[in-house]
Amino acid sequence: MNEFDLIKHFFSRSTPTYDLGVGDDCSLLTPLAGMQLATSVDMLVEGQHFFSDVDPYLLGHKALAVNLSDLGAMGAVPRACWLALSLPRVDTEWLEAFSEGFFHLAEQADCPLLGGDTTRSPQGIVISITVIGQLKPDQALLRSAAKNGDDIWLTGQLGAADIALRQLLGDIPTQEKLLAACRPALEQPWPPFRFGASLAGVAHAAIDVSDGLVQDLRHILKASACAATIDLHRLPIAPALQGLPAHLIHQSVLSGGDVFELCFTAAPTQAPQIQALAAAHGVEVTRIGSIHKGQGLYVRDEESTRLAPEQGGFDHFS
Amino acid sequence: MNEFDLIKHFFSRSTPTYDLGVGDDCSLLTPLAGMQLATSVDMLVEGQHFFSDVDPYLLGHKALAVNLSDLGAMGAVPRACWLALSLPRVDTEWLEAFSEGFFHLAEQADCPLLGGDTTRSPQGIVISITVIGQLKPDQALLRSAAKNGDDIWLTGQLGAADIALRQLLGDIPTQEKLLAACRPALEQPWPPFRFGASLAGVAHAAIDVSDGLVQDLRHILKASACAATIDLHRLPIAPALQGLPAHLIHQSVLSGGDVFELCFTAAPTQAPQIQALAAAHGVEVTRIGSIHKGQGLYVRDEESTRLAPEQGGFDHFS
Repeated sequence: MNEFDLIKHFFSRSTPTYDLGVGDDCSLLTPLAGMQLATSVDMLVEGQHFFSDVDPYLLGHKALAVNLSDLGAMGAVPRACWLALSLPRVDTEWLEAFSEGFFHLAEQADCPLLGGDTTRSPQGIVISITVIGQLKPDQALLRSAAKNGDDIWLTGQLGAADIALRQLLGDIPTQEKLLAACRPALEQPWPPFRFGASLAGVAHAAIDVSDGLVQDLRHILKASACAATIDLHRLPIAPALQGLPAHLIHQSVLSGGDVFELCFTAAPTQAPQIQALAAAHGVEVTRIGSIHKGQGLYVRDEESTRLAPEQGGFDHFS
Repeated sequence: MNEFDLIKHFFSRSTPTYDLGVGDDCSLLTPLAGMQLATSVDMLVEGQHFFSDVDPYLLGHKALAVNLSDLGAMGAVPRACWLALSLPRVDTEWLEAFSEGFFHLAEQADCPLLGGDTTRSPQGIVISITVIGQLKPDQALLRSAAKNGDDIWLTGQLGAADIALRQLLGDIPTQEKLLAACRPALEQPWPPFRFGASLAGVAHAAIDVSDGLVQDLRHILKASACAATIDLHRLPIAPALQGLPAHLIHQSVLSGGDVFELCFTAAPTQAPQIQALAAAHGVEVTRIGSIHKGQGLYVRDEESTRLAPEQGGFDHFS
């Protein structure tokens, strides 16, 4: 199977009639009149972002999911995607499963694959996905848009992806039941991208929790020049973590990456609207704290309020 | 230097005021009313698309150039680009030069970097670039748009990139002068992307010669359901190749990849207009053959007309 057969067999599916998909020098897309386009690019590298033996169906899903998560964090509705894929060899079984996982989510998200690139990479698998979404001008959920007095909200639950990763890396001993309960959060995240899009014009700032809650929320605080306090006892912890040592839970919840839930801020008057939207989208939301004047991110428990740990979160070059 | 400092230091430059660049979950772009968007993604892998010791300035240039080439082949004007970059380590000298080469061309092309991703890849450097260009609806230079009776045109010259590559790979003995003359074509191509954009509405089909003239022209013939004959003696051969064995020249000219010149078709009545546009853009153009009814690609020399070699061109998985 050569490069062109590979693209045709695995990656050419029907394209909306108003667009031009796989098979020319470029794909073509006609933007809706008056809409802004939000674009995100994420690269996933074998051995760095995923294990070599990960289920390729789940990898196809996750590679697109992390990009849809970025669109949701901007308040944009998915419109189209492009896939650049570098492989050591043509493994049709792997490609079959990978493309199934990818397209299953692409169809759910109404985000057709319009093009991309396939190439050989002697060293390992590299996946780079570009997504484009659309939104009304001036409604983007910018990191710089948090306002003094805003509530801080979080979708979903924290901790499971990190506890799964730590077990797979051997950082903590593997408990079969715990791993089984936490693994889907790591390997098949379902970011609330439709709910994120519905927050455009309702919420202020948003970010998706990819590098860890503390680190990602700090990006909002820095861009918006404000401070925040989050309540440790309000953080929505994945039930599977029950029984683990408290310090481990706190670490995973505050600093664990790969969560792909949304952290966003909104005026307190918007709370009923946010809860209604969340219910309509079947998304769990929790108010975890608030934005205030000053600098820094504080974490409050029953005893005290302290600055959040400095070394939270994931940095690819640290 | 961590991931965020790296992005800030090397990859954050000024963004047009109507767009939002590096530093949020997505970049934002406001399409011009009534325009279509053309998108292309290309991935370059160390050891596969470039040598590990290639000058990083030239690599930064070429990585963007190959994408601009795709826009030109669609008749689109560059609008914005995104860079996903995976590196084994932070080498600031390398990054400085790479980003210089990249931004120098981006500025020339009026194609600002709006975002991307940086990550670690233990195995080697991987570069994936996404470009967006704009064009008027129904003016795209589709591969399927060649018409019976069209002239076939080619920009620039053929052969130099391939002869440079063969010397660097050790396929043919290195001659210092020959390598010096051919190497810029391989390492710092200047695709005629502005000229390509000016052909929208003038030419019919177009493709950029990335995999070899024969293979790429065949894509047009297949998509347009027609045949073509090209004249071997009309092909614009790089002067540096003079004195090389005829069979080697023919191979390089017909099947050598990495050329990034435009091959396009147009009605014979458009010839004066095409020559005027080429002169205005400082681009050399040559009529190399014509489109006719039937199937297949024929090559004509003084003695005979024969089907072009089957095994021309580059396939990443062959």
